[in-house]
Amino acid sequence: MAGLEKLFYPSSIAVVGASKNPQKIGHIILKNLKEYGFKGRIYPVNPNADEILGLKAYPSVSAIPEPVDVVVVSVPAPKVPEVIEDAGKAGAKFAVIIASGFREVGNVELEKKVVETARKYGIRVLGPNVFGYVYTPSRINATFGPRDVIPGGVAFITQSGALGIALMGTTIMEGIGVSAIISLGNKADLDDADFLEFFEKDPNTNIVLIYMEGVSDGRKFVEVASRVTLKKPIVVIKSGRTEAGARAAASHTGSLAGNIAFYEAAFKQSGILFAKSIEEAFDWVKALTWNPLPDGDRIVIITNGGGAGVQASDTLADNGFLLQKPPQSLVDEIRKFVPPFASLNNPIDLTGMAPTEWYYKAVYAALNDPGVDSIVVLYCHTAMTHPVEVAEAIINAVKDAGGLKKPMTVALIGGIEAYEGIKKLTEAKIPAYPTPERAAAAIATVHRYVKYREYVKKRLSYLEEEKRLKRSLFVQH
Amino acid sequence: MAGLEKLFYPSSIAVVGASKNPQKIGHIILKNLKEYGFKGRIYPVNPNADEILGLKAYPSVSAIPEPVDVVVVSVPAPKVPEVIEDAGKAGAKFAVIIASGFREVGNVELEKKVVETARKYGIRVLGPNVFGYVYTPSRINATFGPRDVIPGGVAFITQSGALGIALMGTTIMEGIGVSAIISLGNKADLDDADFLEFFEKDPNTNIVLIYMEGVSDGRKFVEVASRVTLKKPIVVIKSGRTEAGARAAASHTGSLAGNIAFYEAAFKQSGILFAKSIEEAFDWVKALTWNPLPDGDRIVIITNGGGAGVQASDTLADNGFLLQKPPQSLVDEIRKFVPPFASLNNPIDLTGMAPTEWYYKAVYAALNDPGVDSIVVLYCHTAMTHPVEVAEAIINAVKDAGGLKKPMTVALIGGIEAYEGIKKLTEAKIPAYPTPERAAAAIATVHRYVKYREYVKKRLSYLEEEKRLKRSLFVQH
Repeated sequence: MAGLEKLFYPSSIAVVGASKNPQKIGHIILKNLKEYGFKGRIYPVNPNADEILGLKAYPSVSAIPEPVDVVVVSVPAPKVPEVIEDAGKAGAKFAVIIASGFREVGNVELEKKVVETARKYGIRVLGPNVFGYVYTPSRINATFGPRDVIPGGVAFITQSGALGIALMGTTIMEGIGVSAIISLGNKADLDDADFLEFFEKDPNTNIVLIYMEGVSDGRKFVEVASRVTLKKPIVVIKSGRTEAGARAAASHTGSLAGNIAFYEAAFKQSGILFAKSIEEAFDWVKALTWNPLPDGDRIVIITNGGGAGVQASDTLADNGFLLQKPPQSLVDEIRKFVPPFASLNNPIDLTGMAPTEWYYKAVYAALNDPGVDSIVVLYCHTAMTHPVEVAEAIINAVKDAGGLKKPMTVALIGGIEAYEGIKKLTEAKIPAYPTPERAAAAIATVHRYVKYREYVKKRLSYLEEEKRLKRSLFVQH
Repeated sequence: MAGLEKLFYPSSIAVVGASKNPQKIGHIILKNLKEYGFKGRIYPVNPNADEILGLKAYPSVSAIPEPVDVVVVSVPAPKVPEVIEDAGKAGAKFAVIIASGFREVGNVELEKKVVETARKYGIRVLGPNVFGYVYTPSRINATFGPRDVIPGGVAFITQSGALGIALMGTTIMEGIGVSAIISLGNKADLDDADFLEFFEKDPNTNIVLIYMEGVSDGRKFVEVASRVTLKKPIVVIKSGRTEAGARAAASHTGSLAGNIAFYEAAFKQSGILFAKSIEEAFDWVKALTWNPLPDGDRIVIITNGGGAGVQASDTLADNGFLLQKPPQSLVDEIRKFVPPFASLNNPIDLTGMAPTEWYYKAVYAALNDPGVDSIVVLYCHTAMTHPVEVAEAIINAVKDAGGLKKPMTVALIGGIEAYEGIKKLTEAKIPAYPTPERAAAAIATVHRYVKYREYVKKRLSYLEEEKRLKRSLFVQH
C-alpha cells in the first residue's frame, strides 16, 4: 500500500466545486489554500467559471493539463462518484471528500460506490464528510476552518467535524503550533492508523493529538500506536468514555462507540495519554510539544504563594507524583536572597514579597541544578510585581540557561494582566496556564509519558521474546 | 458575642500606617478605599503627615474626633499592640490587621498580646497577616489588591493571602460579581464560622466560596455551614486535599492542615460543594450565583456538533447525571426547523449547518418546555455562524422567555471569537465556558447542590428527632 507522501507533499491540488460565492464551502477552501500560501499548483474545478480568485478554472479534473496529486471534492453527495471516476481517469492519487450525506445519514450504498470507484483507480480517500486537511510544512490549509493556523509540532487528527473546526480555532488562540490537522469523517478508506504511520516518521511532528469516536481495526491501531509512542507521545480524547456518552455517540454517528473497556485496555497497551476533556488534552499537548523529557521524577515547585504551592502539590499527588526535598545546592542558592522565614522545602516559597528578580534567580538556579528534573513555576499576581514582568524574568532565565533542557510549566494566577503574561510565555514556547492545578497536571503528564513509553518498550520486547521462544520451541521439536 | 454589622456597614474607617508613598501598602489600601467609593468617613492615621490623598491625617486613632468603627492596621508587627491599645481607648470596634510577622513566622507571643489587648476593649480582630476586606454593598475595598471588583452575590473567604489577591483579579476578569472578599490570615480571632454566620443572613450574598487551609473548631464549622447550606450554597477549595498537599500546607503555614478524612466527612455532613481546583470552583460559582435552582434532573443538551454533545454527556455521567429522552413536545418543536437526519435524542443535535436562529428557537423552546429542568447549550464555531451572534441569539431567547427560570450553562468552543461570545454571555449573567465539559460539570453542580441541601435538611431533622426522642425517654423514666 502506497504511503501518504503525495497527500502531504503534493505538486498540485484541485478543488472540485470551487465557487465564486464567498458563502460556499468550495470558495472558502480554495481561498484558504491560496492565501495560506500553498506553493504547488492550485486548480479550481467548476464547469460554469473561467477563473475563481484569480486562478484559471477547469470544467473537470480530466480537463486539467496535468495529473493532480490531490482532489478536494466539495459537490453534493450524489455527484461524488462521477467526480471520482473522472479524477481516477485523470490519474489523481488522493481524494479529500468534503461532501456529507453518506453513511452518517444512512447512505451506505453511495459511500461504498465512492470507495469502489476510487479503489479501481488506486485513489486513496480521506472522508467523506470531512472539513479537509492541513499540513503546515507544505503550507496546505485545504479546510473551510480558520485560515491562520500556526506551524508547529502537533499533528491533530479528529473524527468530529464541527468540534474539530472549533478546535482549530482553539489551537490558534492558545498559540499551539500544528504540523497537520486531519478531519477523518466517515473513514471510508484512510483511518487513524494510516495517519499515525505517517506521523510516526514525520520529522515535522513531535506529538499526535487524536479526537476519536471509534476505531474499526483495534489490533492494527494498537500495533501502530505502540510503535509511535516509542518515538512521540499520543494524546487521545475518546468520545463516549462512559456508557451514557457512548449511547450519545451512537445516536450521533449511527455507529456504536464500542466497548469502553476495550479502549481503555488498548490505550494502556499502546501507552496513550487518555484525556478526559478537551481542556486537559490541550494543556498536555502544550507541555509535551514544547518541553524536552525529564531524566527522573524530582519535580520542584517554585511559588510566591503558599496556597498555590499546596494546590499544585495536591494535583501532583493526584497524578501519582510526590514531591521530594529539593537538592541542598538549590536551597543554598535560593537562601541567599529570600527572607529567613521563607520555607524552602518543596514547594519552594519565595514569599509574597518576591520581586521579579527572585523569580529570575530561582528559575535560573533550578534549571541549572542537576538535582532537579523538572520545574513548576507558580506566580500569584500581588501588588508587588506585574505578571508580564515576571513572565519576562522567566523567559530570560530560560534563555540564559541555554533553553529548556528540562521540562517546565508555569502558572500565572490573577486577572487580565496574568493573562497577558501567559501570552508572553506562550510566544516564547513556555507552557503557561491560569491555575496551579493545570500547570501541575501538565508537567505530571510529561513525566507520565516517560513511564508509559518505558512500559510499552518492555511490553514490546516481552512480546518479541515470547515469539522467539515459541519459534525456538518449534525448531527443537 | 456581637455581630459583624459594624464591620460591613461602618460609619467610619481609619487606616493606620497610611502613607503618601504610592509603593506602600498603607497608601494602596487608603487609595482603594477612597476611590472604590466608600461613603462613610475615612481617616488616614500617620504622625508624620497632615493630609494624604486629600484626606486630613491624624497622628493616632485616639486623635480622631469620633470613635471609628473599623481600624485597618498597616504598621510593622511590633507596633501593632500599641495601635490596638490606642484604638481600644478610642472606642474602635474592629481591627483589620494587615501586618504580618506573627504566628505565621513563629511570633506566637506577639499575636497573643494583640488579641488580649483587643479583647480588653471589646475589639474584634480580622487577621493578622491579611490583605484586607471588601464589602461591595457599602463600597468598601480596604485591600491592597485590585480595585475594581464587580458587585454581585458571591462572598469569597480566603485563608491564603497571595493566592487570594490573585483570585480577586480572576473574579474581575471572569466577570464574577462579589458581595464580599475576606482575607482571614492567621484567624487569631474571627474565623470562617463567624463570617458564615453573617453571610447566612446577608441579603446581598447568594453563595459563599471559601479557600480553606484548615478550621480550628470543626464542630462549630459544621453546625454553621449546615445551616448556611439550607439557604445558599457553599463551595470550598480545601488546601491540602492529599497527604502530600497537607505536608506542603504544614510547611507553609506552620500548622497541620489536619486530618483529610475529617474534612471530607465535615464537608459531606454540611452539604458543602468540595472543589478540587480553583478553576472548578470558579466555574461552579458562576453557575450557582446566576442560575435559579432546578425542579428536577431532566437535563437537556442542545448542540451543533455531535462530538461536543458526547463530551458533555460523558461529563454529566461522571457527575452521576444520566440524560433522559427529551420531552416529545420539545422534539416536535425543534423538528419543525432542523433537517430530517438531525438526531433529536438527548443531546439534541441541531447539526453543523445550524444558523443563529435555530439556536434562538431551540433555546427558547427548551426554556419554555415544562418537561425540561435545565439546559446545556453547546456551540462549535464553524464557518456558518459567528459566536458573538450565537451568544446574542441565546441572550435574546432568555430575555424573550422572561429570564432564566431554569438553570442553563453554555459552552462556546473555538478561538478568539468564541472567547468574545463568552464575554457577551457573561455580561448578561449567563454562565459560559470554553469547553463542553466545563459547562456540563457546572450545571451538574447546580443539580448536586439541590441534592446536598435535601440531604442536610434530612440530617438536621433526624438529629432534631433524635434529641426529642432522648428528651421524651428521659421524662418517662
